[in-house]
Amino acid sequence: MATIEAWVAPAAKSDLVRRSIELGPLGDEEVEVEVEHCGLCHSDVSIRNNEWGGSRFPAVLGHEAVGRVVEVGRSAKGLTVGQRVGVGWMAVSCMHCRQCMSGNHHLCPRATPTIVGHNGAFASRVRAHWGWTIPLPENLNAADAGPLLCGGMTVFNPLATHAKPTSRVGVVGIGGLGHMALKFAAAHGCEVTAFTSSESKVDEARAFGAHRAVSSRNPDAIKQLAGMFDLLLVTVNVPLDWDALVASLAPNGRLHVVGVVLEPIPLAVIPFIAGQRSFSGSQIGSPVGIGTMLDFAARHNITPQTEHFPMSRVNEAFERLEAGKARYRIVLDADF
Amino acid sequence: MATIEAWVAPAAKSDLVRRSIELGPLGDEEVEVEVEHCGLCHSDVSIRNNEWGGSRFPAVLGHEAVGRVVEVGRSAKGLTVGQRVGVGWMAVSCMHCRQCMSGNHHLCPRATPTIVGHNGAFASRVRAHWGWTIPLPENLNAADAGPLLCGGMTVFNPLATHAKPTSRVGVVGIGGLGHMALKFAAAHGCEVTAFTSSESKVDEARAFGAHRAVSSRNPDAIKQLAGMFDLLLVTVNVPLDWDALVASLAPNGRLHVVGVVLEPIPLAVIPFIAGQRSFSGSQIGSPVGIGTMLDFAARHNITPQTEHFPMSRVNEAFERLEAGKARYRIVLDADF
Repeated sequence: MATIEAWVAPAAKSDLVRRSIELGPLGDEEVEVEVEHCGLCHSDVSIRNNEWGGSRFPAVLGHEAVGRVVEVGRSAKGLTVGQRVGVGWMAVSCMHCRQCMSGNHHLCPRATPTIVGHNGAFASRVRAHWGWTIPLPENLNAADAGPLLCGGMTVFNPLATHAKPTSRVGVVGIGGLGHMALKFAAAHGCEVTAFTSSESKVDEARAFGAHRAVSSRNPDAIKQLAGMFDLLLVTVNVPLDWDALVASLAPNGRLHVVGVVLEPIPLAVIPFIAGQRSFSGSQIGSPVGIGTMLDFAARHNITPQTEHFPMSRVNEAFERLEAGKARYRIVLDADF
Repeated sequence: MATIEAWVAPAAKSDLVRRSIELGPLGDEEVEVEVEHCGLCHSDVSIRNNEWGGSRFPAVLGHEAVGRVVEVGRSAKGLTVGQRVGVGWMAVSCMHCRQCMSGNHHLCPRATPTIVGHNGAFASRVRAHWGWTIPLPENLNAADAGPLLCGGMTVFNPLATHAKPTSRVGVVGIGGLGHMALKFAAAHGCEVTAFTSSESKVDEARAFGAHRAVSSRNPDAIKQLAGMFDLLLVTVNVPLDWDALVASLAPNGRLHVVGVVLEPIPLAVIPFIAGQRSFSGSQIGSPVGIGTMLDFAARHNITPQTEHFPMSRVNEAFERLEAGKARYRIVLDADF
């Protein structure tokens, strides 16, 4: 039994309010983590506003948690009290389906996201299955590591899967996800191009590792890149000039989306057939993948660029993120 | 200098007429082939009718040629007079660009299709670059091998690239391409499902190697296959229930199109992100890939199911193909 303090969205689109919640006994395979920091991710906004459908209220949001293990269930494996860990987008998967048993736990059809039908980490404590409670490398800056767990993994996974050090990679949208994508792509050894609609981000994109920055509002500039990219990583969730982006792919190139674009993407078939191109998507990655990403981030000294708020100012932080003002990723520091 | 006899489309959508054509001197890197047989492919219809734009008239169609080498240019490599060869969709590529030099000659941006701005093989003789003049294995039935060169390679390439023997493969559309896809997928060791709109093809699909045949007009039947396929190969060129097909993909599954669907395909993003799925396309394959396919076909005794017409009845053959009556692939036998 544990009583926790949490910031709760009582209904869709509402402000968060502080509540005490009784969690009941810890499950045999669960781990309880005392939250120190938790990133604020755009999907917290999407779930709070029920943009994708399927949100459940009241909702405790927050799914980029960093903290220390305070209790382990009797069957939980590989974790000890006091260990520093992270909990990201997924809190639980079944562990025995074909996907879980193949190491693709993030594709488990019965997986439970941390903030849908489960209490998230804008709280004093958060629980997760031991498999989804990821040990943090000692040499990673814990205060800024939270956004790596969801946003960082979201962009690392397609790079690790589809990019080689010799690849030409474009990152579309230089925000919370995109700026981490630039850092990871540069650390992968790729040639990196940033597409941004904001002139003010051009210099920052270069500082994050881009070799070139292109205005995504300039169709002529995109046309000049025809046939260039092996991988285009779309981190935004708005409709784009898809034909122009596909045309900027090299033969065998791939357009990969990680932003939840709500309108179907209309893809003309001939450029895919003639150029043997691909379109794909992904979400986060497996527990082993997340661990690998954290090790890579620690080795390359990659952390997101963050703004910190005390968790008690969570509503202010939501407003800042929704207004597009966050540069680039917000982390809430627990102050219960 | 050579004068050839050819069946020529003088303009879009017109019947073919017999003409004599003066070819001029053989290029240094060209090979001249006396045509014995030539498959009639749906893309001959598409080019004749200028469905994709870019056709050039007068056009000598025909791009699934089998015959014997009668002359080799002074710089042509690896071929001798009298050798039996095939010429498929591509006749020429530049040989020195990044794609050609990587073995991906079919992705050469300056490649010349056999029937666009080049004289095709509904003719007594056809010319091609030596690199695109593919030796035929001795033990392959030459009379029926023509359709392998374009149609066969079109479906073999995605199977060779994306399927493993343990994959669950669905083939959408059991026609000229689809029936060869069933044979190749079965020979790859895959579990094979045929989607056909024609009840009359169900038994034939099984005979071609399908373990299961599903009506593509029955949304409930497709729904029952949700999450099943590692690779869905779309061989038709008409709009389909794309949402249902994507839903039938397993996690990490791929929807691959080889039929030139003219309307953009609207893809909902969430199933791609949540299931880490891909959409892709391809056309034919490289010269080495075509050679590998021919060896595989010979070893597994795979030939298309054909109907033969003398080439002089080429217009009748076009009508039969356009009426959807060909079962399954038409081959024209040269009778000049």
